[in-house]
Amino acid sequence: MVPRYSRPQMTAIWSSANRYRIWFEIEALACEAMAERGAIPAEAARIIRTKGDAAMAAFSDADLARIDEIEAETRHDVIAFLTWLAEKIGPESRFVHLGMTSSDVLDTCLSVQMTQACDLLLEDLDKVLAALKARAYEHKNTVTIGRSHAIHAEPTSFGLKIAGHYAEFARNRKRLLTAREEIAVCAISGAVGTYAHIDPEVEAYVADKLGLAAEDVSTQVIPRDRHAAFFCTLGVIASGIERLAVEVRHLQRSEVREAEEFFHPGQKGSSAMPHKRNPVLSENLTGLARLIRSHVTPALENVALWHERDISHSAVERNICPDATIGLDFALMRLAGMMEKLVVYPEQMIANMESLGGVVHSGEVLLALARAGITREDAYRIVQRNAMATWTKLNKPDGKSFRENLAEDPEVSGRIDADLLDRAFDASLHLQAVDRVFTRIFG
Amino acid sequence: MVPRYSRPQMTAIWSSANRYRIWFEIEALACEAMAERGAIPAEAARIIRTKGDAAMAAFSDADLARIDEIEAETRHDVIAFLTWLAEKIGPESRFVHLGMTSSDVLDTCLSVQMTQACDLLLEDLDKVLAALKARAYEHKNTVTIGRSHAIHAEPTSFGLKIAGHYAEFARNRKRLLTAREEIAVCAISGAVGTYAHIDPEVEAYVADKLGLAAEDVSTQVIPRDRHAAFFCTLGVIASGIERLAVEVRHLQRSEVREAEEFFHPGQKGSSAMPHKRNPVLSENLTGLARLIRSHVTPALENVALWHERDISHSAVERNICPDATIGLDFALMRLAGMMEKLVVYPEQMIANMESLGGVVHSGEVLLALARAGITREDAYRIVQRNAMATWTKLNKPDGKSFRENLAEDPEVSGRIDADLLDRAFDASLHLQAVDRVFTRIFG
Amino acid sequence: MVPRYSRPQMTAIWSSANRYRIWFEIEALACEAMAERGAIPAEAARIIRTKGDAAMAAFSDADLARIDEIEAETRHDVIAFLTWLAEKIGPESRFVHLGMTSSDVLDTCLSVQMTQACDLLLEDLDKVLAALKARAYEHKNTVTIGRSHAIHAEPTSFGLKIAGHYAEFARNRKRLLTAREEIAVCAISGAVGTYAHIDPEVEAYVADKLGLAAEDVSTQVIPRDRHAAFFCTLGVIASGIERLAVEVRHLQRSEVREAEEFFHPGQKGSSAMPHKRNPVLSENLTGLARLIRSHVTPALENVALWHERDISHSAVERNICPDATIGLDFALMRLAGMMEKLVVYPEQMIANMESLGGVVHSGEVLLALARAGITREDAYRIVQRNAMATWTKLNKPDGKSFRENLAEDPEVSGRIDADLLDRAFDASLHLQAVDRVFTRIFG
Amino acid sequence: MVPRYSRPQMTAIWSSANRYRIWFEIEALACEAMAERGAIPAEAARIIRTKGDAAMAAFSDADLARIDEIEAETRHDVIAFLTWLAEKIGPESRFVHLGMTSSDVLDTCLSVQMTQACDLLLEDLDKVLAALKARAYEHKNTVTIGRSHAIHAEPTSFGLKIAGHYAEFARNRKRLLTAREEIAVCAISGAVGTYAHIDPEVEAYVADKLGLAAEDVSTQVIPRDRHAAFFCTLGVIASGIERLAVEVRHLQRSEVREAEEFFHPGQKGSSAMPHKRNPVLSENLTGLARLIRSHVTPALENVALWHERDISHSAVERNICPDATIGLDFALMRLAGMMEKLVVYPEQMIANMESLGGVVHSGEVLLALARAGITREDAYRIVQRNAMATWTKLNKPDGKSFRENLAEDPEVSGRIDADLLDRAFDASLHLQAVDRVFTRIFG
Repeated sequence: MVPRYSRPQMTAIWSSANRYRIWFEIEALACEAMAERGAIPAEAARIIRTKGDAAMAAFSDADLARIDEIEAETRHDVIAFLTWLAEKIGPESRFVHLGMTSSDVLDTCLSVQMTQACDLLLEDLDKVLAALKARAYEHKNTVTIGRSHAIHAEPTSFGLKIAGHYAEFARNRKRLLTAREEIAVCAISGAVGTYAHIDPEVEAYVADKLGLAAEDVSTQVIPRDRHAAFFCTLGVIASGIERLAVEVRHLQRSEVREAEEFFHPGQKGSSAMPHKRNPVLSENLTGLARLIRSHVTPALENVALWHERDISHSAVERNICPDATIGLDFALMRLAGMMEKLVVYPEQMIANMESLGGVVHSGEVLLALARAGITREDAYRIVQRNAMATWTKLNKPDGKSFRENLAEDPEVSGRIDADLLDRAFDASLHLQAVDRVFTRIFG
Repeated sequence: MVPRYSRPQMTAIWSSANRYRIWFEIEALACEAMAERGAIPAEAARIIRTKGDAAMAAFSDADLARIDEIEAETRHDVIAFLTWLAEKIGPESRFVHLGMTSSDVLDTCLSVQMTQACDLLLEDLDKVLAALKARAYEHKNTVTIGRSHAIHAEPTSFGLKIAGHYAEFARNRKRLLTAREEIAVCAISGAVGTYAHIDPEVEAYVADKLGLAAEDVSTQVIPRDRHAAFFCTLGVIASGIERLAVEVRHLQRSEVREAEEFFHPGQKGSSAMPHKRNPVLSENLTGLARLIRSHVTPALENVALWHERDISHSAVERNICPDATIGLDFALMRLAGMMEKLVVYPEQMIANMESLGGVVHSGEVLLALARAGITREDAYRIVQRNAMATWTKLNKPDGKSFRENLAEDPEVSGRIDADLLDRAFDASLHLQAVDRVFTRIFG
Repeated sequence: MVPRYSRPQMTAIWSSANRYRIWFEIEALACEAMAERGAIPAEAARIIRTKGDAAMAAFSDADLARIDEIEAETRHDVIAFLTWLAEKIGPESRFVHLGMTSSDVLDTCLSVQMTQACDLLLEDLDKVLAALKARAYEHKNTVTIGRSHAIHAEPTSFGLKIAGHYAEFARNRKRLLTAREEIAVCAISGAVGTYAHIDPEVEAYVADKLGLAAEDVSTQVIPRDRHAAFFCTLGVIASGIERLAVEVRHLQRSEVREAEEFFHPGQKGSSAMPHKRNPVLSENLTGLARLIRSHVTPALENVALWHERDISHSAVERNICPDATIGLDFALMRLAGMMEKLVVYPEQMIANMESLGGVVHSGEVLLALARAGITREDAYRIVQRNAMATWTKLNKPDGKSFRENLAEDPEVSGRIDADLLDRAFDASLHLQAVDRVFTRIFG
Repeated sequence: MVPRYSRPQMTAIWSSANRYRIWFEIEALACEAMAERGAIPAEAARIIRTKGDAAMAAFSDADLARIDEIEAETRHDVIAFLTWLAEKIGPESRFVHLGMTSSDVLDTCLSVQMTQACDLLLEDLDKVLAALKARAYEHKNTVTIGRSHAIHAEPTSFGLKIAGHYAEFARNRKRLLTAREEIAVCAISGAVGTYAHIDPEVEAYVADKLGLAAEDVSTQVIPRDRHAAFFCTLGVIASGIERLAVEVRHLQRSEVREAEEFFHPGQKGSSAMPHKRNPVLSENLTGLARLIRSHVTPALENVALWHERDISHSAVERNICPDATIGLDFALMRLAGMMEKLVVYPEQMIANMESLGGVVHSGEVLLALARAGITREDAYRIVQRNAMATWTKLNKPDGKSFRENLAEDPEVSGRIDADLLDRAFDASLHLQAVDRVFTRIFG
């Protein structure tokens, strides 16, 4: 992910320094577990922990360079790290990594990084949820037109619209928790996963200390269906971001103008035209959603590794693990900020709703006529006649509103009085269930 | 999905007849709920139920044709059905669908169909799990070589390999249950989801009777993130099928021959060559996995519908809902059958494992030397020297096995005796954790 | 592809009957070539052709059933067909398929079907191009607002907008021709593609007669990169359909109303609301585009077949070959019809353009001031001041148009006269290059 | 793309420095064209060119920092660059960018970068082609077993296998040339692409100087179908890389050992096992192929921009343009090197081919019997009987080769003599068309 769409918090998780820190922790914990079981001297484990902790605390660019230097020679990243670690620890280093295989370190580390990334994403989601909840309550009774097929349908509340997105992000939060659980696993099982040279208790100990579960059956690697499920979840969340972003882009278009992304007071528009405040944040979120979704397919293709493992997944993960989580973290934070500051124009919402002469209320008029005993067929004919009269003269000098046309129609006025008609045109009718829905989702 | 890869059980779920049956059920239940609340006459609801049930019980191709005929005219599928239903029910039909919108019927029906499909897929997964468990136990102690990068690594058990796939499918079963819960929702909320013309209690009643939950916030449609999550899950399962299929394809290749898909006694080979038993089932499963995965992206693209809904998702779902579930149902059943009948060749497994002169045991020899007090560096040098001697003369007249070479190396024989050496070459060392792992996953 | 989105012309290409017709043609041509070279008796080739042609001419459902019956037994589609053919031809059938392998027939047939499909798609594209060209010329000088970020930018011509889509479809036509060339190949090279049992001249002859090129190196199969390139091209075309469909959906939205899909006079709207004419065709096209694009990834995954071939591509192609071409054929024809009949509202275009008080002309005013010798910075300040004054009082009683505000600004009126100002507000300025562009693309 | 999979040549193309160099070139050329047409003073154009060239020649990190500083303020990258440029050029800078829009610079620059990337990729492909051609000729007559379904089929030549991959990469080269042509376009048409404020001749001039074609109809942006086609092509090429990589991975597996990736003499194996030379390059290439393919879908989703343009494509392209081209460049160079140095084991190929007792020659034996006048049915029965006898006792003490079994079968020996039988077992039979195929593809 290019720096433009990265936040340091998430980038740090995928840094070399964080990776080495986790690698050391895994090795040190494994040594402790082995020492506990008498597999290596307790004193060795203690020295490894003490000297290693010190080395990691003092970890600097010089250490990075040294590890890179060794890797250039050995062409093996874990060996390079262990060699560097041995330089720091001394003779006791011979007890490090005993009976383990590189994947034990690499895959368990990846799990730790992914859970760290998840935790940050969960915080981000909470910010999105908080922003949406606040705006939903703020506009709980803000009447706006509901649109199907981008055509005016019936009134609804802007808060209810936002609440719908809240509900989706609440589902996304739950999905991410499930995905976190999926990849919060530890594998320390040695070559081809048989524990031939290492006690399963070591794995259990390390897993426990790292807050992970032990993998059920690791085949040297942690099975990649777990990671695939994780990236799928990110793809679903990204699509939810896109849905809300597309909504904002629609609301901000010149002809709608019901809401706008916040525009900094001193911000220079893209031209001399003051209306040229482009919904660049939501457009950007739309693009980021495409990117994050694009990681789903390679993650799925990574599942079918050959036999006990091949290394084809590695190039994919080196890219998509940071890219997807950094991109999603950035997108969620951008979304939260955008929704917090979204400028909403309730008057324009009303103006738009009424711009079609009131025909958007025809559904309720139809029901009112039916309740007054008119057959469905007749009621439909009456309503359509008046709606059509309104529509064909819309914005014309001799045009009348739907309400006016109905009032003048004897087939209507003879059956339902002005009060009943008013009630059919009362938008609050469409808000009557808002409380119930809000209680349902916000508690 | 072409008929070749379809089973009637799943195809029936997506038939027009089943769809209409569910549509009627939704309408009838909604009428019952409305009657209960006094919104329509109780007698009307009773007549709708009685006559409708009779019509659905007698539903025939003639009815299908009649509905198609009406749809050709009205260009609206739900209206066509309701018109046909009115013909069957008579005047009380005016109480059907009151205050509802087509999406209420369409989306709730889709939920019912998807849960029906899920239930069948869960049965299929159970068959796969049963087959894998049986074969895992059967080959719990069948020694075979573990391979990383498709290169011999260390021994493992064939049962353990199968157990790894079992564990993946057990995870897949759990994922499918979650996905089922995601889409087991009902929405009867009217135009743009405001309940303006229908009581939310009607939705609650219908949901309860259908075994569904009421949607939190439906915007005329059930939000498509639910469906996207469902198709993602199917994609993950498909990838798990591919992993096992690729394993079988590898095992059956001419140079490996450790396992074979069952070949019918009278089955005619593709040529005169008796070895030409092709792993066509697992190859087919590989292809089906690609197909099922391909539905993930359009499902994700379906999430960002415009405003309260647009209809772009419809064309996608009309295809991928049946295609993905029919394809996966077929694939799982094919997989279950294939694994039940898989012909396994334990002797060939041993032969392959030993075909590299026994160097696959070098890891344990190294540890044995280390335990005997030799430094890691020296031990490595000794082991590599003997392994190399074995390797370079592999299959040559003057070649010796790794065991023989080691025995003749004074640096080895001086430190570890024949017994210890035997133990290092004992493959059962690699089976020692199998019981533990089996208990872990099979209980 | 579900029947709802299928046209019989394309469906017929993928029918069993068409496939068997092509299979026979390939076998008959191969026999002719072999006879010419003395590999089989000329009389045999003649009989095979005559009796075979007769059998294919009389091909009926009974024949289909008979072939299915044989396939159920032999589990091999080509053998089943050859057995049926032998029943029709008699003893000379022993000269059919000599030295050939099933893939020779299957893959060459697929090439023929794909080129047939291409030819139909090319016709479809021509219809789309014709419709776009006609509408582009019709609206060559229809002024409308150009929008970036869905925000009004500067005027353009509706014809120019359409011309842009024309140009894209013209590129798509060219791409499809290239894709057609890619898959118009014939392979008759026997097992693993070595021509060990068949003369390459047979392939050359059959290819020539079928209007195909001989495959450079077939490895039993025609390499799947060709098919992948074909599906990629379909995906690009589908995305072009989506771009135009999304444009129409935007233009038809209630607040824009600049164009509408044709609505049949007697067509029943979805409700009593006369404005509720939904852009269902373009929404449907959006969904179909997602479907057609979804075939790209499995087609790419099909490329890496194992060694000389595996059969994993088969299940994929049995589905996506018909699905993608049937879907695209339907979509292109729907698009052509939709664009032919699109109802355009030029007055509404003007109204929308002017709805922001004329600030959309600020760019040219800026240049006019600059040409009058005002520095860029000053000009910008002046323009923005007046645009802002217009914007903040938009639609308010005391609001003035941008033109009025400028006229009253002494810094403007002192520098440029009313004529110059008029010219800056003349939308035809933005049409001046239309002729040139039209000549460029329409010739 | 992570640095691990990046080469400096390609990375440089996507550097900020290169981007700014191209931006300046576009602006300077546009000024020259405007000066030529009298739209700006010739002297101004000269000064812009001279001072600008000097500034770009001296471009340093300080300049980068300065531009970043301005962008942080203006939030607009092109304005930031133009401001910096103005600082370098002085008053004449007011003639820069006249009548142009940011997209004119951005999109034309992207075209230049993409063609530069293409040129590098074409060089890479030439290296791959050269390596494949050399190895194909080297092993033109190296007999190896052809495999369908990973099961031994009939002999072929290893050179022919390589030639098949050569032919695919030759097609890929041609496709890349087409893709290059697709995106080698220039657009300088101003806001919403109407040339309202800039002469189309300026575009023509700049295009010509940059070696690009002028875009047919640009809608402020260059239409994204061009870019989509480009990424599709990269996806097809990546899949071709995967096909060859998978072939190598198969050939190197422990049971096959027909070829191996070159292993550096001093390279440390992953363990003490000398056979543990893992095909890490080809596994890595498999993973890179997945990554490069994953860019196809977002590129397709980028096509349907709203109206004259939205900015959603930008975030996608900022990532996938460098990622895909850097990844593919790296992959192609890795592939070329891998194939140049691939260690091939012809003896092992023969050994594998014969490991099934010679039954792989049964096809030709069948034909020999048929030629000797035996009916197809009888011939099949005879061949199968002997093949089965060979197969069931394969590698057993009393087992005989297929050749021996046939020789002892009176039904065979009575019809075809030893010479004819020898000929049927002569693998060179399968090489007879190699020359022809080589001529066909190598000329």
